[in-house]
Amino acid sequence: MAKVLIIGAGGVGQVVAHKCAQASDVFTDICLASRNIEKCIKIAGQIKRPIETFQVDAEKTEELTALIERCRPDVVINVALPYQDLTIMDACLAAEVNYLDTANYEPRDEARFSYSWQWNYHDRFRGKGLMALLGSGFDPGVTNVFTAWALRHQFDQIDELDIIDCNAGDHGRPFATNFNPEINIREVTAKGRYYENGQWKETEPLSVKMEFDFPEGIGRKRLYLLFHEELESLVKHIPSIKKARFWMTFSDNYLKHLEVLQNVGMTRIDPVKYKGVDIVPLQFLKVLLPDPASLGPLTRGKTCIGCLIRGVKEGKVKTIYIYNVCDHRSCYEEVGSQAISYTTGVPAMIGAMLMVTGVWREKGVFNMEQMDPDPFMDKLMVYGLPWHVKTL
Amino acid sequence: MAKVLIIGAGGVGQVVAHKCAQASDVFTDICLASRNIEKCIKIAGQIKRPIETFQVDAEKTEELTALIERCRPDVVINVALPYQDLTIMDACLAAEVNYLDTANYEPRDEARFSYSWQWNYHDRFRGKGLMALLGSGFDPGVTNVFTAWALRHQFDQIDELDIIDCNAGDHGRPFATNFNPEINIREVTAKGRYYENGQWKETEPLSVKMEFDFPEGIGRKRLYLLFHEELESLVKHIPSIKKARFWMTFSDNYLKHLEVLQNVGMTRIDPVKYKGVDIVPLQFLKVLLPDPASLGPLTRGKTCIGCLIRGVKEGKVKTIYIYNVCDHRSCYEEVGSQAISYTTGVPAMIGAMLMVTGVWREKGVFNMEQMDPDPFMDKLMVYGLPWHVKTL
Repeated sequence: MAKVLIIGAGGVGQVVAHKCAQASDVFTDICLASRNIEKCIKIAGQIKRPIETFQVDAEKTEELTALIERCRPDVVINVALPYQDLTIMDACLAAEVNYLDTANYEPRDEARFSYSWQWNYHDRFRGKGLMALLGSGFDPGVTNVFTAWALRHQFDQIDELDIIDCNAGDHGRPFATNFNPEINIREVTAKGRYYENGQWKETEPLSVKMEFDFPEGIGRKRLYLLFHEELESLVKHIPSIKKARFWMTFSDNYLKHLEVLQNVGMTRIDPVKYKGVDIVPLQFLKVLLPDPASLGPLTRGKTCIGCLIRGVKEGKVKTIYIYNVCDHRSCYEEVGSQAISYTTGVPAMIGAMLMVTGVWREKGVFNMEQMDPDPFMDKLMVYGLPWHVKTL
Repeated sequence: MAKVLIIGAGGVGQVVAHKCAQASDVFTDICLASRNIEKCIKIAGQIKRPIETFQVDAEKTEELTALIERCRPDVVINVALPYQDLTIMDACLAAEVNYLDTANYEPRDEARFSYSWQWNYHDRFRGKGLMALLGSGFDPGVTNVFTAWALRHQFDQIDELDIIDCNAGDHGRPFATNFNPEINIREVTAKGRYYENGQWKETEPLSVKMEFDFPEGIGRKRLYLLFHEELESLVKHIPSIKKARFWMTFSDNYLKHLEVLQNVGMTRIDPVKYKGVDIVPLQFLKVLLPDPASLGPLTRGKTCIGCLIRGVKEGKVKTIYIYNVCDHRSCYEEVGSQAISYTTGVPAMIGAMLMVTGVWREKGVFNMEQMDPDPFMDKLMVYGLPWHVKTL
């Protein structure tokens, strides 16, 4: 019925390919492209259905356009690097194909998250009758849909939103990062930011924390306030929100390692001369740390990502908590990737499914909370990310 | 009256030069040599008396012999690197000059402390009527003399010896090592070893610890069992000792940094390929860490090094604690080096003084505890390392 082109063959691309293959009634044809075609071939080899594989440099619009025109998919699922969002959007416009991604565009040389670059494409997509769906991962993605669903079914008005991301997994290594260590460390060491009464407030890195008691045996964990991109779109599209924050768990052990690496200068991104060679300490550190891909089979434990929402229903203040719990090992057994990739890849497939089946059909650039949440919430239940609601 | 040749112009060499210059009644002529003559010239510039400076490669016996024959000193004070002890001893034999050092020989490629290499020189020094005094620093050195003094004045028999080295200084940097980081980290991460009932027992690195309440406001600190070279000579020369251990303080912060650096592989001494270049992580780390020499003016607080000795006097078991407390800042103001270098350099000067004045005159290779402790103990009081005895 529909053809999909997945660009990016990392952990998330692997999950998307597996999940699209599972939904064979919808995705009759699957193409997978990456700068490194070996990665595509490896993923295709894990899946019983035929997957067409391609090599592409996702920073080159012409190459991308040629690829899209050759595949002629109904939708492009972009799970490449955030630096590459704009070239892929340009190629979708040129080839006149719908677009979906899971993380907003960032310039390569600064750690700055903003939807502004991609929102600027709205009129161009609308003009061509195309749809671009932004941030269809878990957070952003499912968290936006949770909020939209809560606004429809649980509240007359939402006042406060706390998005809470807990990875209670353990890979058994003293220190490793779940994805590219360079990007991971850069994000964690950046300033925090949250929204309150119409203003963005900045906080020192990891300076604001709280504890939260997670369900399903995970227990109490400490969370740290970070900026995360969905805050920007949610306060725009749900203007009643007075306060919006994003929280992530980091273990004391992880933070200890990070602190020491900062103290000794190993997170520096400026080159240091050694034996006459320019060495960027953070990049050298990456060589020493375990390859994130090697952690998949080792990781045990669960993730729990959700929204704590406070608002008013029929004149009464209420608070609800909507969340999903995902088990690293079960994910790895199903699709060969642990829960970090799984929770991002499954919603990407679902977003694409709703687009190609016409359930979500708009013209222009859209964030997840602008769409009808109900069919998405139903699909989460079916495709491996069951959710729960508690009234607190 | 006497001429001294100091080889080595690091922190300790600087202290030795200053202290020899202070003792102008004994050391009428001072020569200072180093691989890097700039360092010698810098030290000479701090001292009002004339200091002759020389360039020498302390790994080349012929160069050393030529230098010693040119200077014709009464004693060579070796405060170069431990790797260089044997070449300097060879040169002293060739030029027929007395020898003194502060740290025993170690092969360059393994962290193995043993007096065996240097004890093997005994007959050669004796045959030429020369004296070699080994380990005339603080520990080894003063700690050996403390023990010999205790055996003469406080005990009929010594049963147990704990040498306790506390650096309660604070350099205000998150992480730095007091001397060459490569050697420092290699030592601390080595297995511990102690002597009990005629046997050496090995312990996992930093696995054995105790607390001790230090005097003069330093307070309780945690100590870790390490191997240290004076244990080997002390149990040989004082055979009544049944148990001998060496303890050193490390702050939780220091150990935290060390643990993380080990976890991520930054203390590895095998080369790692990066951008086609072989990089030894520990050596790259050294480039990032503060230069130990830069810590001198920053360091505040005290050191406290001493011996806790248990034995029998007139049929009764007793325990005494002999120690010196040294203030980093006072040392820096006096000689431009902090207490770590000061406590090593002052005993080197005193040992040389006792040799050239004929108070300590033997033929062969000797450790400190084999000599008459009383004149050395007197000089400690005069030259900046006053000591105290407590009966516990």
